[in-house]
Amino acid sequence: MLAEIIAVGSELLTPYRQDTNSLYLTAGLNELGVTVAFKTIVGDQREHLASSVEIALTRADIVLLSGGLGPTEDDLTRECVAQALHLPLERDQLLLDELQQRFSARNLQMTENNRRQADHIHGSTILPNRNGSAPGQWLEVTFNGRRRLVALLPGPPAELQPIFDSECKPRLAAALPPNHLARRQLRMTLIPESHVDARSAPIYKRFSDVQTTILAGNAEIQLHFSCVKPTLAEAEARVEAVADAVSREMGDDVFSWSGESLEEVVLLMLGVRHHTLAVAESCTGGLIGQRLTSIPNSSRVFLGGAIAYSNRSKTALADVPSYLIDEHGTVSEAVARALAEGIRRRIGSSLALSVTGIAGPGTPGGRDAQKPVGLVYLALTDGKETQVKELNIHGSRERIRLWAAQHALEMLRRRLL
Amino acid sequence: MLAEIIAVGSELLTPYRQDTNSLYLTAGLNELGVTVAFKTIVGDQREHLASSVEIALTRADIVLLSGGLGPTEDDLTRECVAQALHLPLERDQLLLDELQQRFSARNLQMTENNRRQADHIHGSTILPNRNGSAPGQWLEVTFNGRRRLVALLPGPPAELQPIFDSECKPRLAAALPPNHLARRQLRMTLIPESHVDARSAPIYKRFSDVQTTILAGNAEIQLHFSCVKPTLAEAEARVEAVADAVSREMGDDVFSWSGESLEEVVLLMLGVRHHTLAVAESCTGGLIGQRLTSIPNSSRVFLGGAIAYSNRSKTALADVPSYLIDEHGTVSEAVARALAEGIRRRIGSSLALSVTGIAGPGTPGGRDAQKPVGLVYLALTDGKETQVKELNIHGSRERIRLWAAQHALEMLRRRLL
Repeated sequence: MLAEIIAVGSELLTPYRQDTNSLYLTAGLNELGVTVAFKTIVGDQREHLASSVEIALTRADIVLLSGGLGPTEDDLTRECVAQALHLPLERDQLLLDELQQRFSARNLQMTENNRRQADHIHGSTILPNRNGSAPGQWLEVTFNGRRRLVALLPGPPAELQPIFDSECKPRLAAALPPNHLARRQLRMTLIPESHVDARSAPIYKRFSDVQTTILAGNAEIQLHFSCVKPTLAEAEARVEAVADAVSREMGDDVFSWSGESLEEVVLLMLGVRHHTLAVAESCTGGLIGQRLTSIPNSSRVFLGGAIAYSNRSKTALADVPSYLIDEHGTVSEAVARALAEGIRRRIGSSLALSVTGIAGPGTPGGRDAQKPVGLVYLALTDGKETQVKELNIHGSRERIRLWAAQHALEMLRRRLL
Repeated sequence: MLAEIIAVGSELLTPYRQDTNSLYLTAGLNELGVTVAFKTIVGDQREHLASSVEIALTRADIVLLSGGLGPTEDDLTRECVAQALHLPLERDQLLLDELQQRFSARNLQMTENNRRQADHIHGSTILPNRNGSAPGQWLEVTFNGRRRLVALLPGPPAELQPIFDSECKPRLAAALPPNHLARRQLRMTLIPESHVDARSAPIYKRFSDVQTTILAGNAEIQLHFSCVKPTLAEAEARVEAVADAVSREMGDDVFSWSGESLEEVVLLMLGVRHHTLAVAESCTGGLIGQRLTSIPNSSRVFLGGAIAYSNRSKTALADVPSYLIDEHGTVSEAVARALAEGIRRRIGSSLALSVTGIAGPGTPGGRDAQKPVGLVYLALTDGKETQVKELNIHGSRERIRLWAAQHALEMLRRRLL
């Protein structure tokens, strides 16, 4: 069974935007044992879109479309799929009423163009969209004598994903032979990709029925293992075996075995060890706090902290003595230490982490004027002992901030091992 | 002139990897006045690739292929383009010698499969690759009576980009009428896309020579205008005219005219008005600080603030009286107000912004236990007057945090108008 994914939208043919829905859809299709053979990205032109749908129906058993279901005149997916299948479009009164209610509930006027979202292709099943106004559509059709499964899905990922999961996957599973995919993922940070590959390749190459992919980016290395078997138990056993073997080789470098992010792992470990955490962030400006608080229930262990960007805020929020700043500069071991110790006392957490550094050329004055861009100090304290780490990170402002935050979280993780 | 970009490689059809070369190629093509009409992503299967090339040659004037030029048996781009064009492949002795030298210089044995990198399509121009072993190829051919420009480029971006810039762009420019592209961009936030479209479409539709794209996402609406003309001045005049006209219609809703982000605009306005800013973030946990400090030189106006996640941190960092929390709950108008006023006094900024809200189900206790997920209070103070805003944001934890931060920055921007 081959699938084609068509991403619709002229914005996806500009240098600014990229189709990302297809990655999510591919993962779901692979789980069902379906291979994606083609992806097409096409703009909001009637002719181009209709012919792309026709080509896809010719060469793929399953065709998933994302985007082009909105209210504007550019939204042509409904029309074009109907045209390619030689089926009429029908306006659904129930959908129209629902749309009307949606707008009324928000005290908004429903403009005429919104009515188009109530059009569906004759014979299609409407796939309700709880997170947006345009529903999806599901079709099982015969095209040139061949059976085709077709889904029209809205473009916004928050709308597409739940519809695909709850409406399309069960329908696909029912139509396909039983196939089960198991995945495992190992994540490491702050090590070169080539080192990970050199150490793990001799192991994973022994598992010829497991597909291994190494991804590197954002200061992380991910090893993805996947395997398809007639039963889930068989597939699971294989990916587990390879993940265990590689994991033994990599030891403590592996921070995650099931896809958790570094911040999730750190929060988990803090909870298990009955610790609480505060942070004082200078050059990262809230990035570490933002990452930790993006995780549900982080408030059980993460108490808060200071965005200690200016000298005054370092003193006012984390009690850093101003003579320390005058003497050593804000980007110094002494200030990193004082930030961590000060914020811990102030917030009353058991542990505290601080970051101070130079993320880009610009404003540092005083003692910091001669220090290089990329110089970062981290400190981690439990009130009795304070560890300090000096880093020299190269690259852009964004990269320096990202790597500084990553080093800080990794320092904390290793402390908690 | 329409172009199609074909990205070749089975790894691009997995859930983990994405074609990014096409963004770079699209920017270059657009500069020459060429629109990308289709992107196709296809794996390393002979039949699939050859038929994709044929389809592209049928519907596009310019076909750029990336990937599939390496030495392995999976690398089929040369063969498949030759097949689609009914042209023979020829082994180039000069290229073969160069390859041989490359290997000798590194003390490596050249394996047989590497010889395939010396194959070129009859009539093609070889495009030298300084950063890798597989050269590109350039073809100007007639396909079904129509002129077609075709380039085969290696997959690694570090190889593809210099070849495209130095070898393909001059050839494309010579083959195309003189064309210049101008772009303009208007950005708005927190308004429904359909409203922006309803108000702006009657205007931008009068400019039939300007291409308009509406992008919505992350609580933002972007209107992109682009126009291609024989001279840059003409193109600039057209995009400026449409941007001005739409901008007049949308009024203060437009926060950016040249692509600046909301945080950049806010920092700029704070600077112009000689203001400084502090923040106290509860449910956004550092997100606003992180966004502001991601901008170079933000320290001139952004002084820092509190990640006031726990009750204790609200009191310890922003002097929120604990009786207020007991009486009203942390997610309340009173606490939002106290957070903003407290952090302003503590940091000594002229303005301060606070956010407190419920980003997800979980930990709120006391007075907050009955409050709905998505309830958020913002406060903005200048020390004399404090504005407070209540929001009800629906959706995921991530969405609630993003929209809360966006509302806070927009509240500040409107205050500074």
